[in-house]
Amino acid sequence: MHRTRFTRSAILAATLAGVIALPLSSSAQSSSRDIQAKAPADNTQAARQAIVGGRARNVILLLGDGMGDSEITIARNYQVGANGRLAMDSLPLTGEYTTYAVQKDDPTLPEYVTDSAASGTGWATGNKTYNGAISVKPNEKPVPTILELAKAAGYRTGDITTSELTDATPAVLASHVVDRGCQGPENMANCPQNAIENGGDGSIAEQMVDTMPDIMMGGGGARFDQAVQAGQYEGLTVRQQAQAKGYNIVDTADELDAANGQKPLLGLFAPVNMDLEWTGPVPTPTGTAPSTCQPNAAYPSTEPHLSEMTSKTLRLLDQQTRSSRKGFFLQVEGASIDKQDHAANPCGQIGETVEFDKSIQLALRYQRNHPDTLVVVTADHGHTSQIVEAGTTTTGVTATLTTHDGADMTISYATAVFPASQQHTGTEVRIAAKGPQAANVLGVTNQTDLFYTFKRALGLN
Amino acid sequence: MHRTRFTRSAILAATLAGVIALPLSSSAQSSSRDIQAKAPADNTQAARQAIVGGRARNVILLLGDGMGDSEITIARNYQVGANGRLAMDSLPLTGEYTTYAVQKDDPTLPEYVTDSAASGTGWATGNKTYNGAISVKPNEKPVPTILELAKAAGYRTGDITTSELTDATPAVLASHVVDRGCQGPENMANCPQNAIENGGDGSIAEQMVDTMPDIMMGGGGARFDQAVQAGQYEGLTVRQQAQAKGYNIVDTADELDAANGQKPLLGLFAPVNMDLEWTGPVPTPTGTAPSTCQPNAAYPSTEPHLSEMTSKTLRLLDQQTRSSRKGFFLQVEGASIDKQDHAANPCGQIGETVEFDKSIQLALRYQRNHPDTLVVVTADHGHTSQIVEAGTTTTGVTATLTTHDGADMTISYATAVFPASQQHTGTEVRIAAKGPQAANVLGVTNQTDLFYTFKRALGLN
Repeated sequence: MHRTRFTRSAILAATLAGVIALPLSSSAQSSSRDIQAKAPADNTQAARQAIVGGRARNVILLLGDGMGDSEITIARNYQVGANGRLAMDSLPLTGEYTTYAVQKDDPTLPEYVTDSAASGTGWATGNKTYNGAISVKPNEKPVPTILELAKAAGYRTGDITTSELTDATPAVLASHVVDRGCQGPENMANCPQNAIENGGDGSIAEQMVDTMPDIMMGGGGARFDQAVQAGQYEGLTVRQQAQAKGYNIVDTADELDAANGQKPLLGLFAPVNMDLEWTGPVPTPTGTAPSTCQPNAAYPSTEPHLSEMTSKTLRLLDQQTRSSRKGFFLQVEGASIDKQDHAANPCGQIGETVEFDKSIQLALRYQRNHPDTLVVVTADHGHTSQIVEAGTTTTGVTATLTTHDGADMTISYATAVFPASQQHTGTEVRIAAKGPQAANVLGVTNQTDLFYTFKRALGLN
Repeated sequence: MHRTRFTRSAILAATLAGVIALPLSSSAQSSSRDIQAKAPADNTQAARQAIVGGRARNVILLLGDGMGDSEITIARNYQVGANGRLAMDSLPLTGEYTTYAVQKDDPTLPEYVTDSAASGTGWATGNKTYNGAISVKPNEKPVPTILELAKAAGYRTGDITTSELTDATPAVLASHVVDRGCQGPENMANCPQNAIENGGDGSIAEQMVDTMPDIMMGGGGARFDQAVQAGQYEGLTVRQQAQAKGYNIVDTADELDAANGQKPLLGLFAPVNMDLEWTGPVPTPTGTAPSTCQPNAAYPSTEPHLSEMTSKTLRLLDQQTRSSRKGFFLQVEGASIDKQDHAANPCGQIGETVEFDKSIQLALRYQRNHPDTLVVVTADHGHTSQIVEAGTTTTGVTATLTTHDGADMTISYATAVFPASQQHTGTEVRIAAKGPQAANVLGVTNQTDLFYTFKRALGLN
């Protein structure tokens, strides 16, 4: 008998701590202990109804970093069972998209394994670029992003993550530098032409503050504590620059709870990445005894969870747009799915996927109440983790988890010698959508197509 | 500059040899050298039109054994380039399905990594069962298959593969044994209760002949040369049993070419598995220099290619049903995608996928001319191969291929120590469809759902 998943009690604890009263019900993820499938109903009519053209008032992109089909299956099996369904599984229209980057030296040649920067530039701008590029073309010239275009057209905008706010995925929406490492004004070694002292637009942190999305949240506080090196804000930290430009800055879950939407909101909840939801066994070359994941007891009470950031952001953006003709564009990233796949940490990876899925659940609930919202759930690239025969070893490291089904699932990490960082993979990845324009994710598309789908949905030129 | 793919010349050679005049055009797979994506057209209206309810006259299932999203991407990148499209990429409605099996000792528990027998029993009968089971439930009782139900209802039926005809995928449609190894009457050690001498229905080969699909083709001739051990056909080989029952047996491509549809047709083109389309580099722990795949010079001229078997089968089934109210059910398996993934043979795997894709192209062309045909393309489980960063090594073996794009693609096999057999994986896999009932593959489904989709399409009870 498998003990109750701990996620609801974790939410309850957060709620009791007065952080945020999350309206999550247990029904949105449907767990199943019955693994014999039943005859399904005919989906034809429901599919027809799911195809909605025309404009969307709002767009919500939920991006699971490194969340390929293998990572989704691992999280589903563990959390709700093989015949259960995650919230992300309920989106009605689905496809796979290609994620390749291009080579910097010769952009007519693909790089079959992308990083989050090139992939993000793809969906954020419609351009294929080189690994490491933040919304610049292979020739290093900046290209407008969907968030910038939406903001210029009068939409409210949000950009939230569990990684540093200046990491690749949130960065591609609101900044343009030639190397993803250039996250703060003291990190500009690889982007001299982007530094303000050289006439550039500054680091990722500085540019994001300049772009000024209505809501930005994540970790990466240390980048914002760096000193601006030149220009109007020289001598201030980026954090002070943000305040000078009008941002309300919050550093804790309590402050987030108290924040209203009267000023732009910048949440910086950790100096680097935000903490992990779950902990669990370390894989080894000879495998592990079956065990289960545990909540991360060291998760700071001052840090909101991704679903809490999502809930607050949706509430504020909804308030801010209630009386306006245009809605919002919001990006929500589950960033550490990727980071824990790199680290060969199965419970780390699964816990982040489950928390990300709770954010999807909130977005889908918003969509039910606001059907003129396009919700897209996808990943930026595939990753290492593979489900192999239970109890077997591979050439890499494996760990075995006892799932919601009460069965053993063995996960292998074998693209690098542990504990070296595991590799991304080049597989096509799932994209799923609901709402106006969702039919554009069907079949096999290119990750750059998503930019055009967003543009069409929001009526941007 | 990448040299011309050799597949068209291989087809031309086959055509000149008088085997079969294949009406393949070069346009069905769209290769692309332009890897910068263009703004796509709005798919909303096309998607609406692709959703067709009601009955299908014909069903064509094309099953790529072990052809997960990673294997599809590898074949696409190599054959048509990262921004090209295989024929299988053109199906308009797509989803992912779960493939898990159940444990024999306790069928309430899943086995997260399936084999082709359990997965095949899933889509062929709608029942989850244990690995190794051929259309029997976990309690070893037989359950009717979609091919048997279709035949009983008056549809013509076909079942073709590149493996032994008695291997798991073709077997699950027309036989019921407790262990997939029981392929011929002299292979019954693991299925005593199924042996005719013990009152059973016989080996897979015997049962397939008894079920009597209108067309069966593949390898596995040696199984049919085994002696029937008891009953009406005792002393005959299974081949002779098939002749006694009325089958026209063909052993070569020429004989296939000459065959007409007046009698049921049994094609046995190789003693074991049919030969491989391509050869190429052997992966090593330190990788390989970039190279390309080559046609298998040892491919016997007497063996038809899968696309030729598909072409002939479609022509015969079409002729046989032209004046009847009911059409046909056909299964086409690309079997050695899986076998060459097991063998860590990248060009073997890709060559089989490309040849399988040509069969898909033929099915789609048939569907265009007969829109009352449901075409489904899917896999039975994921597999080992992963695209990793070009030129890197992993914990397993890698090989680097120069693709249609003229770029290097490195493929890793790391779920077993080479040359031991690589493992299947438990990831959800792609399912794509076109025609009546195709909307039932959207979203996340279970592989057992496909049985019900077929039943609904053919109006079976």
